Amino acid sequence: MRARKKKWAAGELLDNPRILRDAEEYKKRIRECFENDNPIHLEIGCGKGRFITETSRRNPEINYIAMEREAVILAAAARRAQEQTAGSLVFLLADVKDISEYFHPGEISRLYINFCDPWPRKKKRARRRLTHENFLALYEQLKIPEIFFKTDNRILFEASIESFSRQRWLLQNVSLDLHASDMADNIRTEYEEKFSAFGPIYRLEAYLRD
Amino acid sequence: MRARKKKWAAGELLDNPRILRDAEEYKKRIRECFENDNPIHLEIGCGKGRFITETSRRNPEINYIAMEREAVILAAAARRAQEQTAGSLVFLLADVKDISEYFHPGEISRLYINFCDPWPRKKKRARRRLTHENFLALYEQLKIPEIFFKTDNRILFEASIESFSRQRWLLQNVSLDLHASDMADNIRTEYEEKFSAFGPIYRLEAYLRD
Repeated sequence: MRARKKKWAAGELLDNPRILRDAEEYKKRIRECFENDNPIHLEIGCGKGRFITETSRRNPEINYIAMEREAVILAAAARRAQEQTAGSLVFLLADVKDISEYFHPGEISRLYINFCDPWPRKKKRARRRLTHENFLALYEQLKIPEIFFKTDNRILFEASIESFSRQRWLLQNVSLDLHASDMADNIRTEYEEKFSAFGPIYRLEAYLRD
Repeated sequence: MRARKKKWAAGELLDNPRILRDAEEYKKRIRECFENDNPIHLEIGCGKGRFITETSRRNPEINYIAMEREAVILAAAARRAQEQTAGSLVFLLADVKDISEYFHPGEISRLYINFCDPWPRKKKRARRRLTHENFLALYEQLKIPEIFFKTDNRILFEASIESFSRQRWLLQNVSLDLHASDMADNIRTEYEEKFSAFGPIYRLEAYLRD
């Protein structure tokens, strides 16, 4: 099963026109993927791609990049995007820790982080959280002006509020129970759909200050 | 019943040695209530006083002031404090909006806000919330370095995170489910005891930046 899956993914990675082949080639040249000067929004850790596919369908005037470091997951997401005729959306097989190598400062105008790995509480592991201060520093270097963040993990959300606050990001539209609040246009991820029965979904928007 | 209650409160207000009679007299002279130079912590809206009584019992090296604008409630809180031999704790019948008239900048070294009135969502009413930016500005003028805030009201807590963030307070020890977290020394208010069955208790600490 595993081998079959890998084989399928390899095919998808080769044939799907939305996947940026040889990701390294696109370092600092991502803008060339798009035939317009519209804003670029980036999702890191796109999972199976439901969120970014639907988001790109609804916003044809925005260019989307979905970043994911697991090739099999990326392949599945890209297939979905292709089948559901997503908007202007491409997929990049890369690790977030290398984000600075791919983009110019100012190039990304919004970042989405949806249900990233919460990692256990141990201090060493907490550094891997995509909202850890070390990562926030990377986003700040890239001058990403806004971050939209969702999670169902309480401890991760608590820690994230603290890191954003320490780095002086402005927090807005904080929701401690997204599905009970009045955010009408929320697009649910696969994970969100599945796990919202077990507790609240948390969400916030963080804005970089001048 | 009401008249009886009022009569009882009037007696308490006259006789209880912990109540600062003629509050106006204490404007900018609060320090004189205490016979030492220990730090002063202030609770605004102390309700029936369970929290501040127990807190003062556990921390004899801190001077406490409990502020409350409802005379009958203040009387009940002061009676409890007296019966339970609270520590260094006095009660001030005053409205938070006048806080600047009572204290010198730097005089209060911690502020407690517990389960304050969340007020309805309407914009005009939201200004009355004790964590509204207008109030935060008062606390900042008084150079209060830390605020410990608890509530069971989700919408109030969301709005409070946003106001603290806008005013650049540093948020730490954020808890989105206080009773499920590992804060061992939490002292529950009457309200907290009663309402924690219906949903999570939220808590945060906000620190004034230099």
